[in-house]
Amino acid sequence: MNKSFIIEQIKRSQSFLCVGLDPDVQKIPQHLLEEPDPIFEFNSAIIDATYQHCVAYKINFAFYEVYGSEGIQSLEKTIRYIKINYPEKFIIADAKRGDIGNTSEKYAKSVFEKLECDAITLSPYMGKDSILPFLKYKDKWAIVLALTSNEGSKDFQFLLCENNQPLYLKVIEKSKEWGTDQNMMYVIGATHQPDIFKQIRQIIPHHFILIPGIGAQGGSLEEVCNAALNDDIGIIVNVSRDILYADTSEKFATSANIQAQYYQQKMKKILMDRKLI
Amino acid sequence: MNKSFIIEQIKRSQSFLCVGLDPDVQKIPQHLLEEPDPIFEFNSAIIDATYQHCVAYKINFAFYEVYGSEGIQSLEKTIRYIKINYPEKFIIADAKRGDIGNTSEKYAKSVFEKLECDAITLSPYMGKDSILPFLKYKDKWAIVLALTSNEGSKDFQFLLCENNQPLYLKVIEKSKEWGTDQNMMYVIGATHQPDIFKQIRQIIPHHFILIPGIGAQGGSLEEVCNAALNDDIGIIVNVSRDILYADTSEKFATSANIQAQYYQQKMKKILMDRKLI
Repeated sequence: MNKSFIIEQIKRSQSFLCVGLDPDVQKIPQHLLEEPDPIFEFNSAIIDATYQHCVAYKINFAFYEVYGSEGIQSLEKTIRYIKINYPEKFIIADAKRGDIGNTSEKYAKSVFEKLECDAITLSPYMGKDSILPFLKYKDKWAIVLALTSNEGSKDFQFLLCENNQPLYLKVIEKSKEWGTDQNMMYVIGATHQPDIFKQIRQIIPHHFILIPGIGAQGGSLEEVCNAALNDDIGIIVNVSRDILYADTSEKFATSANIQAQYYQQKMKKILMDRKLI
Repeated sequence: MNKSFIIEQIKRSQSFLCVGLDPDVQKIPQHLLEEPDPIFEFNSAIIDATYQHCVAYKINFAFYEVYGSEGIQSLEKTIRYIKINYPEKFIIADAKRGDIGNTSEKYAKSVFEKLECDAITLSPYMGKDSILPFLKYKDKWAIVLALTSNEGSKDFQFLLCENNQPLYLKVIEKSKEWGTDQNMMYVIGATHQPDIFKQIRQIIPHHFILIPGIGAQGGSLEEVCNAALNDDIGIIVNVSRDILYADTSEKFATSANIQAQYYQQKMKKILMDRKLI
C-alpha cells in the first residue's frame, strides 16, 4: 500500500485512527468463549463495528502467539477477513521484530509474503542490516521504534549520546537514511511532552508517524496532533483497549462502534480545523 | 532450569555448545521435502545427531514463522521432541522480543508456559517494563541483547552515551539491576574484539553470556573463551549454520554429528586447560 493511497484513505474516512487488535480471552465478552475460535469471532465483530471509522488495524502478535499455532491460525484468519472485506485498510503487524540480516529476511517474508501485512513494527537496536530486508518490498513499510509510549522508554531512549542528542533522535537520524518516507514510518508514543513531536518533525518532516499511547495509556489526542500533523497529515493514531474493551457485555460491538466513532469525530474536527480535509 | 543445573550439564558433557536450529527448506537435504513435515524431520535428525555434544538448543523463531501457523506447529513439535528425549537440554527461544508491559506478559506466557522454553532473547530498547514480565518466572531466563554479532551492531550499540560509555555497556549496567545472574544472561557476539569481553566481565563477572557469531559469522572460539570464561564457565556458545549445513546430502546427520563433536572437543580442551573440568 503506497503513501498516497494511505493519505487518500485518511481523507476519505476523515480519520487517521488505527484500531489495535489485542484480543485477550480474559477480557473479551465471555459468551464468545463458546465459539470454536473466540479470538477470531471477537476480532471480526470488532472489525465490522469499526471499519467505517478507521484507516488501519494493528495486530499485536503477542496476543496470538500466547495460544501457540492455534493463535497464529486466528491471526491468519483475522488478516484474511480484513483483506477480503476491507481491502483498503492498512494492516500493521505489531511484532517488534529485528535480527541479523539472514533472520530478518525470514521475518520479512513471514509478515509481508505469508501473512500479507502492509507494515511491521521493528526494534532498531541491531541496526541497519536488521531493518534493510523489510525495505526491499515495494509498497510495504518498516515502522521503526523511536520513542515508545511505556515507562521503560526512559531507560535507554532518552540517553544522551554524541552531540548531546538523545538516543531516539540518533535512531531517527541514522535510520532515515536507510529508506524513504515511502517505506519507513516511526513509532513515537503520545505519553511524552508534545514538544518532542515538534523536535522530531524537524528531522522527519514528511514521514508518517505511528502514535500509540492515546486512551488507556493517557496521552492527549489534541496536543499530539497539534505538534505532529504535517501537510500530508502524516500521522496514524492507535487506540486498542479503549475501543476493544469499551464494554464486555453482548453489546461489545455496538460500544466499540460508538467509541471508534468518538475518536473519528475528534479526528475529523482536527483535520477540518487544520484545513487538511 | 536453574544456573547450577546448567553448569552441571556443561561439566558433564564437557561442552558449552548450543546448536542453533535455523531450518531453511532451501538448504536442508532435498529428500526431506517428501516428508509431511520436513522442518521437523530435519530438526529431529539434527538433535539426535548432536545431543551428545551440546548443552543447549536455540530455536530461531523467524525460520518457523515464515511458514505461518504450520511453521509454529513444527516449532512446537521440535520443542516437545527435545523435552521428551533430552529433558536436560537448555532450550532457548531466539525470538528477540520486547514490548510494553502488558504485551511482554503475553510473550512471556507464550514462550515459557505455552512453548515451555527455558529462556528467550530480548531486545532492551523498550526498557525495564519490557523485560520484567520475563523475570517473574522461576528457573526461566531473560537473555538480553547487549552487543550483537552483526555489522549493524555498530550503528547504535557503540554510540557513546553519558560518561563516555557505549550504549551496550549502559544496557548491561542498567538492566543487570532488574534481575540476577540466576535469571538473566546477555548476548555478546563473537565478532568483536575479544577485549570487549574482558570489559564486560568487569560489570557482570557472574552472569552467563550467550555468544553467537562463531563459525559462519567468523568469530574465533579460542580468543572469545579466553576473554569470556569465568570460574563457573559462564558462557554458552552458539553455532548454527556450520553444524546444520555441514553437508546437504542424505548423510547430513552424520556430518552434523562430526561437526558438533569437533566443537565439543575444542571446548573440552579449553575447559581442561583452564581447569574448569
